[in-house]
Amino acid sequence: MPRTRLHVIPTSAPDDVSGLEALIEAKQIDPGALVAILGKTEGNGCVNDFTRAFAIAALKGALGPKSEHIAMVMSGGTEGGLSPHLITFERLEEDGPGPALAIGTEVTGALVPEELGTQAQIRVVAAGVESAMARAGIASSEEVHFVQVKCPLLTAERIIETEARGQRTETRDTLKSMALSRGASALGVALALGEIDQSTAEAAEIGKDPAIWSGRASCSAGSELMGHEILVMGMSADWTGPLTIDHCVMADTIDTGPVAQAMARLQIGQGARLAALLAKAEASSTGAIRGTRHTMLDDSDISATRHARAFVGGALAGLTGQTDLFISGGAEHQGPDGGGPVAVIAERRL
Amino acid sequence: MPRTRLHVIPTSAPDDVSGLEALIEAKQIDPGALVAILGKTEGNGCVNDFTRAFAIAALKGALGPKSEHIAMVMSGGTEGGLSPHLITFERLEEDGPGPALAIGTEVTGALVPEELGTQAQIRVVAAGVESAMARAGIASSEEVHFVQVKCPLLTAERIIETEARGQRTETRDTLKSMALSRGASALGVALALGEIDQSTAEAAEIGKDPAIWSGRASCSAGSELMGHEILVMGMSADWTGPLTIDHCVMADTIDTGPVAQAMARLQIGQGARLAALLAKAEASSTGAIRGTRHTMLDDSDISATRHARAFVGGALAGLTGQTDLFISGGAEHQGPDGGGPVAVIAERRL
Amino acid sequence: MPRTRLHVIPTSAPDDVSGLEALIEAKQIDPGALVAILGKTEGNGCVNDFTRAFAIAALKGALGPKSEHIAMVMSGGTEGGLSPHLITFERLEEDGPGPALAIGTEVTGALVPEELGTQAQIRVVAAGVESAMARAGIASSEEVHFVQVKCPLLTAERIIETEARGQRTETRDTLKSMALSRGASALGVALALGEIDQSTAEAAEIGKDPAIWSGRASCSAGSELMGHEILVMGMSADWTGPLTIDHCVMADTIDTGPVAQAMARLQIGQGARLAALLAKAEASSTGAIRGTRHTMLDDSDISATRHARAFVGGALAGLTGQTDLFISGGAEHQGPDGGGPVAVIAERRL
Amino acid sequence: MPRTRLHVIPTSAPDDVSGLEALIEAKQIDPGALVAILGKTEGNGCVNDFTRAFAIAALKGALGPKSEHIAMVMSGGTEGGLSPHLITFERLEEDGPGPALAIGTEVTGALVPEELGTQAQIRVVAAGVESAMARAGIASSEEVHFVQVKCPLLTAERIIETEARGQRTETRDTLKSMALSRGASALGVALALGEIDQSTAEAAEIGKDPAIWSGRASCSAGSELMGHEILVMGMSADWTGPLTIDHCVMADTIDTGPVAQAMARLQIGQGARLAALLAKAEASSTGAIRGTRHTMLDDSDISATRHARAFVGGALAGLTGQTDLFISGGAEHQGPDGGGPVAVIAERRL
Repeated sequence: MPRTRLHVIPTSAPDDVSGLEALIEAKQIDPGALVAILGKTEGNGCVNDFTRAFAIAALKGALGPKSEHIAMVMSGGTEGGLSPHLITFERLEEDGPGPALAIGTEVTGALVPEELGTQAQIRVVAAGVESAMARAGIASSEEVHFVQVKCPLLTAERIIETEARGQRTETRDTLKSMALSRGASALGVALALGEIDQSTAEAAEIGKDPAIWSGRASCSAGSELMGHEILVMGMSADWTGPLTIDHCVMADTIDTGPVAQAMARLQIGQGARLAALLAKAEASSTGAIRGTRHTMLDDSDISATRHARAFVGGALAGLTGQTDLFISGGAEHQGPDGGGPVAVIAERRL
Repeated sequence: MPRTRLHVIPTSAPDDVSGLEALIEAKQIDPGALVAILGKTEGNGCVNDFTRAFAIAALKGALGPKSEHIAMVMSGGTEGGLSPHLITFERLEEDGPGPALAIGTEVTGALVPEELGTQAQIRVVAAGVESAMARAGIASSEEVHFVQVKCPLLTAERIIETEARGQRTETRDTLKSMALSRGASALGVALALGEIDQSTAEAAEIGKDPAIWSGRASCSAGSELMGHEILVMGMSADWTGPLTIDHCVMADTIDTGPVAQAMARLQIGQGARLAALLAKAEASSTGAIRGTRHTMLDDSDISATRHARAFVGGALAGLTGQTDLFISGGAEHQGPDGGGPVAVIAERRL
Repeated sequence: MPRTRLHVIPTSAPDDVSGLEALIEAKQIDPGALVAILGKTEGNGCVNDFTRAFAIAALKGALGPKSEHIAMVMSGGTEGGLSPHLITFERLEEDGPGPALAIGTEVTGALVPEELGTQAQIRVVAAGVESAMARAGIASSEEVHFVQVKCPLLTAERIIETEARGQRTETRDTLKSMALSRGASALGVALALGEIDQSTAEAAEIGKDPAIWSGRASCSAGSELMGHEILVMGMSADWTGPLTIDHCVMADTIDTGPVAQAMARLQIGQGARLAALLAKAEASSTGAIRGTRHTMLDDSDISATRHARAFVGGALAGLTGQTDLFISGGAEHQGPDGGGPVAVIAERRL
Repeated sequence: MPRTRLHVIPTSAPDDVSGLEALIEAKQIDPGALVAILGKTEGNGCVNDFTRAFAIAALKGALGPKSEHIAMVMSGGTEGGLSPHLITFERLEEDGPGPALAIGTEVTGALVPEELGTQAQIRVVAAGVESAMARAGIASSEEVHFVQVKCPLLTAERIIETEARGQRTETRDTLKSMALSRGASALGVALALGEIDQSTAEAAEIGKDPAIWSGRASCSAGSELMGHEILVMGMSADWTGPLTIDHCVMADTIDTGPVAQAMARLQIGQGARLAALLAKAEASSTGAIRGTRHTMLDDSDISATRHARAFVGGALAGLTGQTDLFISGGAEHQGPDGGGPVAVIAERRL
């Protein structure tokens, strides 16, 4: 039976692979079994964040040709007291009782820049999620608790190249392209998981209608790819091992209640421990949290995504007592306006 | 008997005094009774934050000559989802049972720039705190729960003017001068409250020894003054009214437990409501939180004070469900390294 | 005959009016003769730049009711080594030879937020320019050398208020709203000066077509107004005094040649001195300068407008040997893509 | 006879080595002849700028084991319209007339963190410069026109590790450590070139006395090394080829005159073309340029080094008409306070 093994590995810099290498050396990680590596790096998480690509280059250097089949989703931005780290996911074979955390990955083909933020991207991601579910052996979308997607963004160069071909990208604003790409990817997840139907997806104004969202998508944009890397996580009776997963949706940046409840459902603190937490953060487009004004959208010195990661990071670190949380910014169509999906992974004492 | 009345007033911009004026118009605030106004503005909270001075100019314009005797402590920085607001403190006369929140203020004379961050500043602040306690009618320092201090900082102009006189300031780094000023002010509070003794204060390496601290000081630097504005808050049997105060010390940026306990002691959620929360935030100089690395000190794009405010703001907003919290950055000698004092003010249903 | 008098007054902070007051005290400025005050302040020049409003509040405080009829255009951002300053324009009466610098101002009515960046704004500004020309006594648009416009921007609050009324603003991005407002204002100037015709203006895609531009407009957005303050500068045979003006267009951020030529035409360095220089700066949307890549548009830490002001500021300070230049960011429809108009004002020795 | 060959190669990202690889492929660069690669990357040039290390990792990957003996000095920060690029220096053998540009490199041993910013660093760099001169075959220090040094900086981790050993670094401020390291390195250059004598070097207050400086040092700090990489450039009668070099010192950020003169001396525009320009930029500690205030030191949103690079970059791009200039920030002891050394390399038509 398949089993997921997970390690959270602190890093001292974007290209620090020493922790990963030590675990491989100590036989605690089998590089041949790795199916995905998520990572938080200390860049700005925006357009000119080269720490993501640097981390991936270092991982590929360390893992060699074995890295080819590993989905790698680096998310920039450890604002506030958040801590840079890697999360490794291995698929091992082992007999034992189920259900347990099941994982599957897919890498999609590359978009052309003018497809970014369009229906084409929704379709590509939806197909990718279905394929990753199949690999995880998850039959029903209801068993899926979280889908992490790494998606592309536009750079000035890509926009200009597109225009040179006589085409037009959805936006000329590189920072905004990250939002569009995350939004379209999230709608792709929502479509694949049945959270929205085909006609809703097709009618969706991408990036504009906050009422349409996935409660399980987490999308992160980076300049180092034009395709998508997708990691589906769910519970499956066919998988074994000590790991379990649940999810919830924060209604706003300070809505810690649902997370506490998800932790309780997984018996964290009562026989199980928090193995990993993944969450989306964003500034509400209303300019307010519970009716009280926030200033994130009017700050021209610090991107709103950086503010939101720091703030949600603080809320969830205050709740869990840990700072090595995977908080990712920009939750367009991922949870309600100003809120976002959260995945909690627990390790049971067996 | 004296009684404290407190309003938390949202602002739409640094110079927005419309909320204050509306409450005065509605007779809910008596401008003649105002003794202090604290405020969070949406500037960067660092050297070139002119929102503090702009807010004070607007308040003085609105209140006219009456404003002369009102201590005004504007603190810049509402990072993350924190919300700009004013907190007004009035001293009314009313009969009723005690004890209750007691307040007193003092404005000290101006330092010369070369005194900033030195023993001279410690002495000036200590004397100011004692004077403010006397005005509050608080006899014992044990009854003091929080001391808010607005202190000066160095600008390039002040440094140059000092050097033109043949003197030398403690630092030529304007951002660092804010830390030194907050640190010396906090030691002044600690000395006045008996948290450290005279010889410890005199031997203190200001800004360097994180082991010496006040558990009740909150200091905030601004370029708009060279003296100090001090607000002492405590519990006194001689005061009446529905307000009570307690304090605690967060051991680090995510240490929400003591705050939850202080809220419980004040019966918030059980007959009382949270009227105001004031807290200090800072990045630990160890570069870690509970042994896990943070990146706040190595970020040359965003000041560590901004990161810390956002993160602690998130932790406390997640706990309290409110974002109009007075979180102030830079906790040198204010609580342990990486942590900080917190004041909780409750309003009882009477 | 009318005569323009001009002072460039250094400021030590956004609200520093001491230099202005000293000149009034010394009878070198007659406050009753002031028709316009331009100023560069040290804010970020973007959405949350409150230094502009702070400066205007201080000026109004200093000048009292006389300030009502003075156009005040504060432009944020003195990046690089640029220096904060005020430029005062007085209209005096004096006999003497012409031609000389002629000035005229107009304040337009307020837009509603949904008009910002639309044809309505073009029309309002064009009418305002014509009115200001009339006040300057400039009959022909060919005699106009520069039109400085202060225009509004959208804040999160204004967007939300608009949507609450069932309307929709041209953008929900506050920083982008500054670009749209500057662009529409520039087209209004171009229309008034005959640089484009009515049908071109009506067909213009505001903020999108870099081929349509004014060579004499300089527009600067600020949150402190919803209308426009317009200052027209030209040469008129009916005006006298030592001041002359000429203009040119920089083709890109480093195109100093035309400025050197304009200075030569005004005989600066040969009997005349540089009295003031006003210029627009922007990052080219092509991502390149003379075919070589720039990184301004991909920098999510520093706004492209800040980069451009610093760079053009350096180019023009290196040329003129002065840093108290009025360089304003965001040159949408003001000069060609990546370039911008420049006004040079000289003072002849008479 | 040795001959220097130089290429300026534009890059599209920090890890873009495609241009270098294309030139190698086209036999225009012989990787075995490379002795140094300088590069400007688009990071912030401050502590958390990982683009420098990313660029070096990519270069090492592209060049393989041959890269071991190549000095690589990446400098972060292409503010304003400056353009990321690499400058390759090859040492070829060829007969011909001299004199011409001569180059030599050295890599020093690693400092321990507590040596950074001390006399030990001065000594290490001085010895390294002498060794690089010997390799260049430059006998007299008067023939040296520029010395580019890559030096280390302190990170939070290095400081903590040092303190764990019971030692203390010169500063706990990571950004300030860059200044100290550049300053000590520059004094090492000055000592090696005879610009200051031994006793002056030993008495120097590193980073504090702006009167002691080198007119030919250019130092750049990065977190990716603890030693120094040194490149000496001079004119030697024993070298041949079309390249020549001269240098000058800018007295302040806008002092373009001496650069124009150096260009004229090298007959640029009159038979020769500008092959490369290297310059240092910094904000004057006086807070003023030619007596007029600048705001770079009081800006807590943008590091003063970033402001200065943008501004000097603008001044020199305006002068030369090129944006692919190697402008490096932080000129402690490199030129006078607020100014800096400039190297101009010309290619003669032979």
